[in-house]
Amino acid sequence: MKLVQDMLQGHRLSLARLITKVENRDPDLAEIMTEIYSKTGKAQVWGITGPPGAGKSTLVDRLLEQLRMQGKKIAVVAVDPSSPFTGGAILGDRIRMQKHSGDPHVYIRSLGTRGQHGGLSHATKEVVLILDAAGFDIILVETAGVGQTELEILSLAQTIVVVLVPESGDSIQVMKAGLMEIADVFALNKSDRPEADQLLRELVSMVGMAEHDETSWLMPVRKTEAIKNVGIQELLSSIEAHQAYLTQSGKRLAKTRDFLKNEVKDILSERLNRSIDATFLTTSGQEVMQQLLNRTLDPYSAADILSGVYPTA
Amino acid sequence: MKLVQDMLQGHRLSLARLITKVENRDPDLAEIMTEIYSKTGKAQVWGITGPPGAGKSTLVDRLLEQLRMQGKKIAVVAVDPSSPFTGGAILGDRIRMQKHSGDPHVYIRSLGTRGQHGGLSHATKEVVLILDAAGFDIILVETAGVGQTELEILSLAQTIVVVLVPESGDSIQVMKAGLMEIADVFALNKSDRPEADQLLRELVSMVGMAEHDETSWLMPVRKTEAIKNVGIQELLSSIEAHQAYLTQSGKRLAKTRDFLKNEVKDILSERLNRSIDATFLTTSGQEVMQQLLNRTLDPYSAADILSGVYPTA
Repeated sequence: MKLVQDMLQGHRLSLARLITKVENRDPDLAEIMTEIYSKTGKAQVWGITGPPGAGKSTLVDRLLEQLRMQGKKIAVVAVDPSSPFTGGAILGDRIRMQKHSGDPHVYIRSLGTRGQHGGLSHATKEVVLILDAAGFDIILVETAGVGQTELEILSLAQTIVVVLVPESGDSIQVMKAGLMEIADVFALNKSDRPEADQLLRELVSMVGMAEHDETSWLMPVRKTEAIKNVGIQELLSSIEAHQAYLTQSGKRLAKTRDFLKNEVKDILSERLNRSIDATFLTTSGQEVMQQLLNRTLDPYSAADILSGVYPTA
Repeated sequence: MKLVQDMLQGHRLSLARLITKVENRDPDLAEIMTEIYSKTGKAQVWGITGPPGAGKSTLVDRLLEQLRMQGKKIAVVAVDPSSPFTGGAILGDRIRMQKHSGDPHVYIRSLGTRGQHGGLSHATKEVVLILDAAGFDIILVETAGVGQTELEILSLAQTIVVVLVPESGDSIQVMKAGLMEIADVFALNKSDRPEADQLLRELVSMVGMAEHDETSWLMPVRKTEAIKNVGIQELLSSIEAHQAYLTQSGKRLAKTRDFLKNEVKDILSERLNRSIDATFLTTSGQEVMQQLLNRTLDPYSAADILSGVYPTA
């Protein structure tokens, strides 16, 4: 496919068009993904999450600057599944995009929920594969929160940075929120605020108390002030240490397996959903629906009857 | 099944146990849902959503009081898919539960994301079916936002109330957030604030400008002050008017069809995911995984090969 060839040769407009095709679940999708796949598997994928207002976008921008100084090619995917009531992300992105618009080794893209009924985490996964094939060394995936959709999206990252601010509350709240389970590195941003040291001490002690042995990764807690460019180098060192740990411990392979298994699941689920939609338009599908509506057939028994809808290759 | 019989006879502990089985995706689930299904289809399901801090819980509580005065049996399902960084809901629920704990015709239940990897909207749908079978007249489903997961959850409601506050911003933001598409009724809460009238005028004019004909439902905008119990009766009238509209226009049937189709989809997807997990543990599944890891086989081609995993009845 010409578009894929152009993208692989560094043509940015082709890259943008391919990503749009992924977002729109284009009919060419399977062909595109089949063509690019042999070029993937080289990029590091980092996830950045945290509550609204924690300064994630600024922090991502600072990381981007540092990584560019190291000569790395960087892509940023900003995903906001819960945008309706927030909406600050888009403006922030626009400013970032302008700032890096002249740099051929930076690519920034926003993915949103609008028009997408389900499947945002699937689309994000495939966008990451395309950016990987395009030759970016590191792909930063930024999400706006850690709800269910965000967690699914973050599952594609090898290293997850959870950004907290002193106002995020005490360590008990952090633990209750399940952040201990998803974080690989904590960034305590806006750490010049007076309550920061208290939360820092609590986080460090919480990490130490968690069950671990000599092979475990102990989540570093890094103080940052993204707006003043303070603590960024240290945060970066911790992320790089986690990437090294993943390789040495064999956990990188386990993560890649999970990523691939989930991608196959998502592909089959998407086909299944299309197939069910088509079946309910047939005469026998309409009969099943009528019985469901009459409450003479229940959904689980209907699913048994409709098992024949599973699409084959 | 004895538990189902006891629940149908009004035994509350059995109801609670059945809901827990749904949450935990118990092996008995298909049998439970098959047994209860013929008793469903009578309840009205209302969805209440809005940004954090809009006063949804208080508003739901006021609606509950009014509906109880009419003698209706009411269930409330509070779903918080994005709880990690918020967390206020649980306290609010506890207070509500205490207040109504002596009333056998009120049942309040919280559903959360913890421990649930995906499938929250599927579980919520089945909890609603159980409450429907248990004989509740109206089931209020309250969610904390309108991200992707929340929208999926709200798709089970026949009438959706979007709660806004003057601080939610202007009508342009409301439109951009996609709220025009999901709302059946707007509740403008905390409407004693000075900016309320401006937003009210904008919302009313926005509703009037939206494309419509004589058969369309024009979303009412109701001013409420939940905390002072102001405007609740008027909000209730608008919800009841929408329910009447659904029946007269034939749209209730379309919504029920969608609900049932999605429930069948969710059941088949859940089975598919289990089946894929099992397949990747077999020898041939492991061979496919190895080729994926070697980048010699891409996920779309792997999906073709694994199409045989679709489970049959």
